[in-house]
Amino acid sequence: MSDARLTGDDLRDAWAVLSATERLEGFQHLKRAEADEFFLGLSTHEQAAMLRAMPSAERRLWLRLLAPDDAADLVQELPEAERAFFLGQLDDVSRREVVALMAYAEDAAGGLMSPRFARLRPEMTVDEAIRYLRRQARERLETIYYAYVLDQEQRIRGVVTFRDLFTAPGGKPLAEVMHTAVISVPDTMDQEAVARVIAEHDLNALPVVDADGRMKGIVTVDDIVDVVQHEATEDIQKLGGMEALDTPYMETGFGAMVKKRGGWLAALFLGEMLTASAMAHYEHEIARAVVLTLFIPLIISSGGNSGSQATTLIIRAMALGEINGRDWWLIIRREVAAGLALGGILATIGFIRILVWQAVFHSYGPSFVRIGLTVSFSLIGVVSWGTIAGSMLPFIVKRFGFDPATASAPFVATLVDVAGLIIYFNVAEVLLRGTLL
Amino acid sequence: MSDARLTGDDLRDAWAVLSATERLEGFQHLKRAEADEFFLGLSTHEQAAMLRAMPSAERRLWLRLLAPDDAADLVQELPEAERAFFLGQLDDVSRREVVALMAYAEDAAGGLMSPRFARLRPEMTVDEAIRYLRRQARERLETIYYAYVLDQEQRIRGVVTFRDLFTAPGGKPLAEVMHTAVISVPDTMDQEAVARVIAEHDLNALPVVDADGRMKGIVTVDDIVDVVQHEATEDIQKLGGMEALDTPYMETGFGAMVKKRGGWLAALFLGEMLTASAMAHYEHEIARAVVLTLFIPLIISSGGNSGSQATTLIIRAMALGEINGRDWWLIIRREVAAGLALGGILATIGFIRILVWQAVFHSYGPSFVRIGLTVSFSLIGVVSWGTIAGSMLPFIVKRFGFDPATASAPFVATLVDVAGLIIYFNVAEVLLRGTLL
Repeated sequence: MSDARLTGDDLRDAWAVLSATERLEGFQHLKRAEADEFFLGLSTHEQAAMLRAMPSAERRLWLRLLAPDDAADLVQELPEAERAFFLGQLDDVSRREVVALMAYAEDAAGGLMSPRFARLRPEMTVDEAIRYLRRQARERLETIYYAYVLDQEQRIRGVVTFRDLFTAPGGKPLAEVMHTAVISVPDTMDQEAVARVIAEHDLNALPVVDADGRMKGIVTVDDIVDVVQHEATEDIQKLGGMEALDTPYMETGFGAMVKKRGGWLAALFLGEMLTASAMAHYEHEIARAVVLTLFIPLIISSGGNSGSQATTLIIRAMALGEINGRDWWLIIRREVAAGLALGGILATIGFIRILVWQAVFHSYGPSFVRIGLTVSFSLIGVVSWGTIAGSMLPFIVKRFGFDPATASAPFVATLVDVAGLIIYFNVAEVLLRGTLL
Repeated sequence: MSDARLTGDDLRDAWAVLSATERLEGFQHLKRAEADEFFLGLSTHEQAAMLRAMPSAERRLWLRLLAPDDAADLVQELPEAERAFFLGQLDDVSRREVVALMAYAEDAAGGLMSPRFARLRPEMTVDEAIRYLRRQARERLETIYYAYVLDQEQRIRGVVTFRDLFTAPGGKPLAEVMHTAVISVPDTMDQEAVARVIAEHDLNALPVVDADGRMKGIVTVDDIVDVVQHEATEDIQKLGGMEALDTPYMETGFGAMVKKRGGWLAALFLGEMLTASAMAHYEHEIARAVVLTLFIPLIISSGGNSGSQATTLIIRAMALGEINGRDWWLIIRREVAAGLALGGILATIGFIRILVWQAVFHSYGPSFVRIGLTVSFSLIGVVSWGTIAGSMLPFIVKRFGFDPATASAPFVATLVDVAGLIIYFNVAEVLLRGTLL
């Protein structure tokens, strides 16, 4: 590859396998316009890593390229000790904006918004507004397509789009042109909820107000795409039974990754140890009827799988706002019915399997019908229990103030395994007493 | 609740528990402006259901409210037999647009785009362009903020934003003002890939071109929020070990839901039956050393959990485009190391657990150290196998042309369970021969 012709796409393709030094070197070979676009396309985490790898003299240029909300995110990625230095690289106006934004939690509306929005007054005419915005177009505003009409206390009176201005008579005051039903969100609202408001109302921009109702900034839909991606990734990783990584898989250090996976794996392991205790409790039965052990993995995994399906469905529906905490009663009715139906399907397959193996291999001795019934009834019980536990656990976890996604499939499976063993051995005791037990 | 004061928010809150008739009734009580917004905020599926519930006379009004891409999606939701009737409700121009869009797959760029974009010619001056767009603002264009400069063959020569027009001298020709490096995508590109292009380049609008390079429409970022949400939901549901539902949980019919869950549950159950065969193979060993069975659920579930973590991480990283098919070699090295580390952690905890129980309850007889070593070595083997199988399965599934998300956690767990039993009993045979076995 000839250095002179390195493009942003080339660099992006090779990115994952490059070291920090190689990344910087490649980046410095890009043409200026391409380098700008490439830098803005990086994640905050990658931008921070790149800036830290650069000679100090170059940092200012790239830091100033960022919108204040992105700059605030970047500064928050840095170690405490380096923040003051980076803030010092900004011009005064930007620094004040960035510091104000840093007061908000990164995942709140306030941390997501840009303070650079277009402001108009209700008494302006349409022509005045267009002329004013035309001058403002040179400023680094987030968007000039939406302009907010504010009163003297910075409270939102209405909103106009360019399209409104262009189709209205030039002499009309804005107060008669603007839309007055403006949806806004508080600066403390969680970004996941902000994303839902934007998606639900199909908005392109959403004003953010403080506790006194004063407009502080706008969140635009392009920021929301990243939020939605990021929140889905977090939920998916939690559903896989680990802590969310926060950084892309290939860029997560080995130690950090082992810690985030190992913590949950160890916790699940400790929970799963209860199965060893439960099994020990039935050691006597196992010794008398070894045939019972053959179906243990089959039965407990079926409970785990049905629980995994139920918890995944409920957690996602909660994240999308399709169901909320009060709906548990609707859901338990549905899931009990689903559990019985699904358990019935598996029970039928399991019973047939035992009959066939008995006919062909004579695997299970004279009590094969009772063994088959034991497996089938256990499956109905375990699968139903799996769907109930799987669908209710997200509600319980949420009630205690945790993210419902913590009720991951492996977590549910671990709970269901112990219950599954107890169900199985109790069914066996009833059905096999006097024959095998 | 007084009907006269029913708001869109009230209706949205009650939505999940209302029947189709109640929904329509509530909707018809909304004020016109609120009803518009409410209708546009519904999913395509809900819009279709609502229209079908309405008297024919009212349908036209609501159908015409939709942008052509949304109308095309809606018509595609309808049963084949009703489509012609609904298309007949549209005006001629819209109908032609909708029919053209229906030729595209719903999840391709062509099915996502709007054909109503602002077109300019390179020889126009800035002032001419502004005047032209001001007239166009009355048309139902998707956005007037981005205007595309096309040549006579409808090929993209450049793009200008309002901001560009407002800051440039009025007499300059567009050819000197426009940005010529325009990112566009083919109309056949999958919507997930379109979403990645938009997210990566932080675009607000993305032009779509046909095979001859002619511009056919634009995809805007607000459509992409829905795509990203929808694709994440699909992946999450597949990761939970079922078919994606395609409709919200509360709106999915009971039969459809049982089918989508039952199919995978039965398939996993058939796979898991291999554990019964594996166990039968070791029946002799189990009869001689019942103590071995106590740890079976613990060991196989640990393999399942580590596999679930690995497959989830890889599937998500693939969906985000962070890794691709060629990266498997980088990943297997990383995952083998992670598996050994994680297995080592669990092995240590398991060994301590056995020592403690032996000291307190004398649970495991004189061979307790060998039993502890058997469990520990098995855990290292099973957990490592789990991470390898979990991380490689998405690559294999993808290679065969399926969605990597099909390599769900329950699917991996089922594979790992059988291998886990084989590893465990083989380790036991080596370590316990001459003592327990």
